[in-house]
Amino acid sequence: MTGLVLYELAGADPALRFSPYCWRTRLALAKKALPVTTVPWRYHEREALAFSGQERVPVLVDGATIVADSWAIADYLEQRYPERPSLFRGEPGPVRFLNSWADSTLHPALLRVVVLDIFAVIDPGDRAYFRASRERRFAATLEAHSADRAAHLAALKAVLTPLEAVLAQQPYLAGADPAYADYVLAGTFQWIRCIGGPPLAAPDGPVAGWWQRMLDSFDGLLRRAPVRGERAA
Amino acid sequence: MTGLVLYELAGADPALRFSPYCWRTRLALAKKALPVTTVPWRYHEREALAFSGQERVPVLVDGATIVADSWAIADYLEQRYPERPSLFRGEPGPVRFLNSWADSTLHPALLRVVVLDIFAVIDPGDRAYFRASRERRFAATLEAHSADRAAHLAALKAVLTPLEAVLAQQPYLAGADPAYADYVLAGTFQWIRCIGGPPLAAPDGPVAGWWQRMLDSFDGLLRRAPVRGERAA
Repeated sequence: MTGLVLYELAGADPALRFSPYCWRTRLALAKKALPVTTVPWRYHEREALAFSGQERVPVLVDGATIVADSWAIADYLEQRYPERPSLFRGEPGPVRFLNSWADSTLHPALLRVVVLDIFAVIDPGDRAYFRASRERRFAATLEAHSADRAAHLAALKAVLTPLEAVLAQQPYLAGADPAYADYVLAGTFQWIRCIGGPPLAAPDGPVAGWWQRMLDSFDGLLRRAPVRGERAA
Repeated sequence: MTGLVLYELAGADPALRFSPYCWRTRLALAKKALPVTTVPWRYHEREALAFSGQERVPVLVDGATIVADSWAIADYLEQRYPERPSLFRGEPGPVRFLNSWADSTLHPALLRVVVLDIFAVIDPGDRAYFRASRERRFAATLEAHSADRAAHLAALKAVLTPLEAVLAQQPYLAGADPAYADYVLAGTFQWIRCIGGPPLAAPDGPVAGWWQRMLDSFDGLLRRAPVRGERAA
């Protein structure tokens, strides 16, 4: 294979790509206008990632260079392709806070709401690992945990408050125009969209408007992606 | 009075200045190397702010210009004094997320922990307003609410997670050097320091290191400020 190659989490349907971290990378590559070949990967396919020295996606292969972790990949793309449109337009520093907040606060709150939706789309070979690891985290079975959905949704709504506040003030998280701050959050929204989770934005609110603009970006890259229950084209 | 004037929240001791929002502005003014005269203000002194058309501090007066709200003030200073050191070094957009997160997520979690500490330092004339408004928010008396301190501290620790994660990766929230993203959070930390609240950083962790560097910045502006129980110099 020539050109860039990206290993992405896939569901039982290999066309269903739902990792928020992999979507960050897809959007970063789109911003840089770098074509990429994507390779579906499942949690149990450890040997397929052995070349990268670790066990998680996204993994980007660019010639002889192998980069894992969505933040490290964005950083790499910005350094390696400085002549292409910038992902950060200035210091990446403050964007890293948003990235960490998404990883450490928003995603755990979302996982509590959508864990059964994820379980429904993953590859059968991933189910035992997924169930065991998430049940350990929740200290409950997935089903018992999910019975409390109303409480998990209320907690999620509280977590999302700063997002509504910012997008009421400016059209994009990055400011007047979209950049990597927006790709971080669009990755999250696309994750939930692909697995058939609940709407994350109040109807007609500023977050809903932002998400529609993100779905339209890059010729509908996010909108065209297969979602749960759709037959892949 | 000539030069810049800043109306700041003060306690019963007029030297005790503990508003996180006012500290953001003090740090922004220090970064711009703009001298300022500060005026102590208490919640019940509405007529003293009537000239500004609203009821909250910080309020900055710069000649004929009156600006309220810490974010609007930072924005104003950046536009008005572009030849002085930049507060944002690029797009303010992503910093606004951190600002909104502090206001809408971190501060409410902190208030739950320190509400009695604030009550102890405010002006006697502010106590009735403060008690009534916060008891309405908590749907409990300040004392009944505060009996649950261990739970409030645990919730606060969870909220602070992304801060620890970012500062493990870079020395300042703004990146390699401090900027307004750091002043936002330093305002929060100074608030808690001034009212004698609990430590916000794990000892010897990256947040603790960052806070020591912020206390040292601008010739110890934050460190020199009077704290609860100290006699003002």
